[in-house]
Amino acid sequence: MVTISDLPTPFLTVDLDAVDRNIARMQRYCDEHELALRPHVKTHKMPALARLQVVAGARGITCQKLGEAELMADNGFDDILITFPLVGTGKAERLADLAGRVRVAVGADSDVAARTISAALQARGTAAAFLVDCDTGFRRTGVQTPDDAAALAELVERLPHLELGGLMTHPAVRGSGEWLAAARRLIEQRGLEVACVSGGGTPHAREIHESGAFTELRVGTYVFGDRHLLGEGAVALDDCALRVVATVVSRPTADRAILDAGSKTLTSDLPPGRDDGGYGLLVEYPEAVLASLSEEHATVDLSACEERPAVGDVVTVIPNHACGAVNLHDQVAFHRGGRDVEIGGVPARGLVR
Amino acid sequence: MVTISDLPTPFLTVDLDAVDRNIARMQRYCDEHELALRPHVKTHKMPALARLQVVAGARGITCQKLGEAELMADNGFDDILITFPLVGTGKAERLADLAGRVRVAVGADSDVAARTISAALQARGTAAAFLVDCDTGFRRTGVQTPDDAAALAELVERLPHLELGGLMTHPAVRGSGEWLAAARRLIEQRGLEVACVSGGGTPHAREIHESGAFTELRVGTYVFGDRHLLGEGAVALDDCALRVVATVVSRPTADRAILDAGSKTLTSDLPPGRDDGGYGLLVEYPEAVLASLSEEHATVDLSACEERPAVGDVVTVIPNHACGAVNLHDQVAFHRGGRDVEIGGVPARGLVR
Repeated sequence: MVTISDLPTPFLTVDLDAVDRNIARMQRYCDEHELALRPHVKTHKMPALARLQVVAGARGITCQKLGEAELMADNGFDDILITFPLVGTGKAERLADLAGRVRVAVGADSDVAARTISAALQARGTAAAFLVDCDTGFRRTGVQTPDDAAALAELVERLPHLELGGLMTHPAVRGSGEWLAAARRLIEQRGLEVACVSGGGTPHAREIHESGAFTELRVGTYVFGDRHLLGEGAVALDDCALRVVATVVSRPTADRAILDAGSKTLTSDLPPGRDDGGYGLLVEYPEAVLASLSEEHATVDLSACEERPAVGDVVTVIPNHACGAVNLHDQVAFHRGGRDVEIGGVPARGLVR
Repeated sequence: MVTISDLPTPFLTVDLDAVDRNIARMQRYCDEHELALRPHVKTHKMPALARLQVVAGARGITCQKLGEAELMADNGFDDILITFPLVGTGKAERLADLAGRVRVAVGADSDVAARTISAALQARGTAAAFLVDCDTGFRRTGVQTPDDAAALAELVERLPHLELGGLMTHPAVRGSGEWLAAARRLIEQRGLEVACVSGGGTPHAREIHESGAFTELRVGTYVFGDRHLLGEGAVALDDCALRVVATVVSRPTADRAILDAGSKTLTSDLPPGRDDGGYGLLVEYPEAVLASLSEEHATVDLSACEERPAVGDVVTVIPNHACGAVNLHDQVAFHRGGRDVEIGGVPARGLVR
């Protein structure tokens, strides 16, 4: 029987027991607060895990790119929100084709996007919902004011084959609820219905009910956990399902160890706003610091460690950012507490278009 | 005829005219200084480009991971140096198998690695060369002193089925030549031959002849160039062969643009030691700053730009780090000056084991 310790390194591993707990916990939160849960598949990129989320009670799924959505539709998912602005006729035509197969909604913030998508839907004779993407404080995409949200909503409602799906924001931050409630009032004053107010982001997911403004939660990373969520107190160590098994391949000095897992295994992602110089958590040596990464090496500072590993030792790293790490790997090793190891693929890996 | 502007975005593109120039220039440098050139395939991960390098005069190729080496051997490359320390019996056995098919050398810094590899070679009845990996200032892997290098060289020479291949370091920094010359003298004093002294790293590649200590140059990124090398003055803008075509998908404010290329397209890699907050060079708007990346978004600060792009515009990004960017993509678009576009794969992508 294959166990985790039999795997060649570096290998990305997923503890399905922890995944089950993470899915159940978030679903329970949403059920308690009458929020629809629409998990983001960009984190795991695997239809098999999206299936677990839907079976547990998720309303549908969220995709970041059209290619992910097409793959998920191929795998039987029939209620898909794409939260990335689809711009250009090529993307709009693919969306219109997808809308002929499954129920699909898109989020965007420009009349250019809305008009292009509407035209493509009309040409194909299909229909889709459009959520107005609102910048409620993160300063990425999104219309800038509730007035702008209402104006775009009105345009969407007028455009053929496009249905106003509601409002969305990412991430839901302090003040997002008030912003979106104001936008909702302005839209309703125009006689339009706001069927959905959707907010994203795992770190503060369980505060999203407080404003009363949201009807839907979009979260991705909760399914795995990572060092960022651990630092935010949003996941417990035991529930960090995604880990890399790695080998100590060099011990050049008393204070330094080199692992065979670098930026091509873990990504170079640092926890947002918290550049503490650590590229992952070394589980067996929590005082160690993954001080720098090369493409295939992690350089580990052991100076704070009493016990230190030897060349050949196999260790475990919790990546900083689960979504980025998964996207580097064509294979992961599923297991339950280190046993029942089964190798699986990552079908939506690399689908950036 | 497909042109670059017909590609869906984001798409990684490779200008083969620039690749040809970069390969020819580095080969000419090595020929002039009687250095063997052993290009690192970790950058491009493509047998087709490694073939161009060997045809131009490269001695053989360098691989970072065993999986890359196996794939390159499958594609007809018969002289391979693996510069990553192979530790563990599983890796040693695969190396011993590979050594039965092609001429192979490995670099490592521990007696554990040397003994394990020797045992596996003996069991398979194959042989390989072993380069002593020396830490000449970068503080990653490598023995710490010329005396340690000589001691490991002596062990290697004694171990069955292992042949002393010489010395290696990465990167070659100021002082590396003197360090390695001292190690070479100590090894030769023991009556052993040092057939090769190999140094790596594109940024200062063309200074490597100055010390007179090196016989071989290992470089990877020179083939493509990237924003890091551009900042170092090691490549010209026109010779940056690797670029991402991306679309402006949102213009939420006068100073902000959002591109459809984030860390899953470009990586989060920053130029080493020069965290200038830029995640790539926006070619058409060189005053713009790629201020932050999400997985699928680049947030661009346009405040220094006189001209500014509109939603739907297609733009070009030179990634910070070519090696990391290539490793995210299953497909690249080869072209010559924007024409003769041909889609190719990245066969060694993701081979971290």
